[in-house]
Parts: sequence; C-alpha cells; structure tokens
Amino acid sequence: MMAAWYEQTVDGVLLDITGVLYNSGPGRGSVIPGSVDAVDRLRQAGLPIRFCTNETTSTKSALVEKLQFHGFNLTEADVFPPAPAVCSILKRRHLRPFLLLHPNAKANFAEIDTSNPNCVVMGDAVDEFSYENMNKAFQLLMSLEEPVLISMGRGKYYKEDNDIVLDLGAFMKALEYACDIEAEVVGKPSPSFFNAALEDMGVTSDKVVMVGDDVVNDVGGSQACGMRGVLVRTGKYRPSDEQHPAVKPSGVVDNLAQAVDLILKHR
Amino acid sequence: MMAAWYEQTVDGVLLDITGVLYNSGPGRGSVIPGSVDAVDRLRQAGLPIRFCTNETTSTKSALVEKLQFHGFNLTEADVFPPAPAVCSILKRRHLRPFLLLHPNAKANFAEIDTSNPNCVVMGDAVDEFSYENMNKAFQLLMSLEEPVLISMGRGKYYKEDNDIVLDLGAFMKALEYACDIEAEVVGKPSPSFFNAALEDMGVTSDKVVMVGDDVVNDVGGSQACGMRGVLVRTGKYRPSDEQHPAVKPSGVVDNLAQAVDLILKHR
Repeated sequence: MMAAWYEQTVDGVLLDITGVLYNSGPGRGSVIPGSVDAVDRLRQAGLPIRFCTNETTSTKSALVEKLQFHGFNLTEADVFPPAPAVCSILKRRHLRPFLLLHPNAKANFAEIDTSNPNCVVMGDAVDEFSYENMNKAFQLLMSLEEPVLISMGRGKYYKEDNDIVLDLGAFMKALEYACDIEAEVVGKPSPSFFNAALEDMGVTSDKVVMVGDDVVNDVGGSQACGMRGVLVRTGKYRPSDEQHPAVKPSGVVDNLAQAVDLILKHR
Repeated sequence: MMAAWYEQTVDGVLLDITGVLYNSGPGRGSVIPGSVDAVDRLRQAGLPIRFCTNETTSTKSALVEKLQFHGFNLTEADVFPPAPAVCSILKRRHLRPFLLLHPNAKANFAEIDTSNPNCVVMGDAVDEFSYENMNKAFQLLMSLEEPVLISMGRGKYYKEDNDIVLDLGAFMKALEYACDIEAEVVGKPSPSFFNAALEDMGVTSDKVVMVGDDVVNDVGGSQACGMRGVLVRTGKYRPSDEQHPAVKPSGVVDNLAQAVDLILKHR
C-alpha cells in the first residue's frame, strides 16, 4: 500500500533522470530549468537520493559525466541504470546474450560472453532497431527451446529534442507477439529494480518519494512498491497522463523544483 | 459454425499464395513441388478458386505475373490482396494515409491523396521498418485526435528463402502498444476480407475450403467465417502449429497436392 503524505515523512527520494533533470537531444541535451538547484536543495536538507533510470543508450560513467557537466551534484554510486542488474542476471543464469543495443551501451556488457547466444537482451537501440536486427533477435528466440528475452524497461516513448520518439517497449512488444513469449523486464517498473535502490539507500518504501515523467513506469511502478509517486509536467509528460485510467499520481507538479518544494514540506 | 466434411460438399476453394503455391526468396522465389498441378486439378474439377493473400510487398499485377511465370493457372481477377480493399476504405472515409510500405507496393496507392496525412496504412514494409519510419508513423498517430491505424494483416512471421522473418503484425503491435490504440486489420483473418472473396465466388462459406500455412490467420480465420480450414506443412508451418492452443485445423496435410486430394474426395 502506498503511504499518504500526512501519515509519513519523506526520508529518501528516487529521481528519474531523463525528462526530470534534463531532456535528451543533440550534444549533451538541455537542463530542465530549476533542476540543478532542486537536487542541491534535497542534498542540503540531508535527504538521501538515488537516481533510478531506464537509460540504456550510454554507460553509467558517460551519463554521470554529462549530468555533472550540467552542474548536477551526483556520483556514479547514486545512479541505478538497468545494465549492471542485467549483467548480474546473465552471470547467475549462465546466459550469453545477443545484444540489441545502442552502440554506446555495448561497453556495459564488455565482460559478458556473447558467443553462441542463448538469450536476447534489448535496450533502447534507437537506429539499431532495424528490420535486420529485429529479425536476428526474432530468429534466435525462435530457435531456442526456452526463449529468454530481457528488456531493460518497457517504456512506450520518450522526449528527444522537441519530439516524442519510440522507446524500447514498442520493440519489446513486437518480439513478444511474434515469438509468443513474455519479456523479463529489468528496469522500472520492475519491483526488484526499485527495491535495489531502496535497499542501497536504507529507507523503507513508505518513506520514499519517486519523481518521474512517466505516469506508468515511474509513478505507477513506485506506487506499486509502496512509495509515493509524483508526476512532473516535463519531459514526455502529456496532459492526458493526468487522466490515466489506472494510475493516480500522489502529486502532479510543474517540474522537479516544485516536486522538491512538496517533498521538503513533508521532511 | 464450421461445416464438417461429411455434412457438406466442397463447391469452392480459397488458397493462400505464399507458403502454399510458392515460397518467397531471391528472384521470383521457388514453387512448392506439386502446387502448379494441384491448381490445375481443381480447375479441371470445375471448382471455383480465389486466391486470398496478405501479400503486400508488390502490386497485384506483379504478383500474378510472377505466379504465371511459374506456371500457375490464374488471372488478376482471381486474386484478393488487401491493398484494393484498403483503397476503398480510404476513399469512403476520406482518409489520407502515411504509407509504411515496401517500395514495390506504393503503386497500389497511386490514386490516393497522401498529402497532410490523417491515418497510417502499414503493409509488410521489410527494410522500411526502420526506427526512423516507425517514428514517423508513431508521431503522426500521436498527433491525431482520433488515430487510425490500418494494417494489411497481422501475421507474426513468414518464410523467406530458408529463414522465418518478421511479418508486419509485429510492427503493428509495436505501434498499438506505443499509441494505446487498436489497429484495423484489412486482410486475413478479417471476416469482411474473406467474405469479399466468397461473395465474388458466389459460394457460401459452409461449402468452401481455405488452404493455408498460417494456422491462426488462414485456418482459424476461415473457420471463424464458417469455412473448413486446412493447414499445409509447407511455408512457415512449424510442427508446434498442430498443437495450437486455440485453433484445430479441419485437416493437416503435407502440401497443396494432398489438400487437393482431400478436397476432390468431397467434391
């Protein structure tokens, strides 16, 4: 059960990155106004923060470097992307993936054996979502007696520059349908993914607020784990998100700066 | 309700093309042994035949020319592909499509106004299923107040040369999921699509047998219209199709030649 604002203080914060701290786009993308200062105010209030992201188009170090360049106060230890969690799963289950990924993200799997693949791992491959590559993933899955498809998220779309563009969830659905299988999602809204960040922070979910621009994966996903989920009107946000048939956000605010105002009221 | 073999004679036949008459592949593809003769035997028995195909990578005339080259006895009037049915719908509903198609199929829509598009029509676009083109379709659909997505079939995969490759159904599912919409399917297994061929033939569904290699779209689809649906073990057929959880074929045979033996027994 999700905590109510009046019942519980806020002792920890999870922040989505893209669409909350900054928007992706040409070069390093652009900061969402007020977000650098908003993170600083959370730090000054002594609140632990973890950054819970489904970003799969780069390495963690490249992502953190970009955010630090923009002035955000964070280190690699604060950031939870799906790739390290997937690497643990691959090693534990002796899986050798065919990687359907953005070229910049392949370094995340440098230590993984990809010979004679027996599963598919997909991230936001962007232009690598070609018919040719989709077929390679499809044919491998169809050749396996127990096909395993690991998807680093299930997002529908995200904001890129001024457009919304397809996220990996659409291509995950394509493979699920063609192969008659269900993907294993590593990343938001998977509870085990949220819980890893909560455990690292040492705060129970009822005392944590998640802030994101994805009403289903950030807000609904965190609420399903017992957190309060706050929706920001930045990034991929669309007004129709406020009338979502299944998810009722714990708060809807214009941006991260307003989310922090709300959080600090309940500190 | 589907007719039983012992209750009704066979007075008309619907045939799938790809995977039943021939397999697509380099050049003109390759004839499935015995199929040319099988069609001739149906003709000699005086049975009306229509060819009910979800082929959307060429024009009807190019398709018929290819089949005639292989020796098949058929004319353009016998062939029912989705494109002409889609053109009628577009005209009737004043829809201007963004066409997500194989380049060879665009001629099917030469008379259709595609300026300022207000819907998406998709076929088996093959290499045109790029991230860029999928995004164009996605962004258009998301910009429309009442998004219309017309898909010329919902197949999962088909046989190309010696491989199975993704069919348009996978990419239809990707757009359905990302946009939260349901596509209108024109082609098999849409009942109105089958019924157009039955009406043209002037035979009621209980007296017609459909032969195809797609257990869901050919066999299940025709059975849902009251026909007998026979599955051939050619084309995209896989042994697991005979244990399909929802569809029980009216017959399973090695190829079209055997299907014709079965049909002529019930003439």
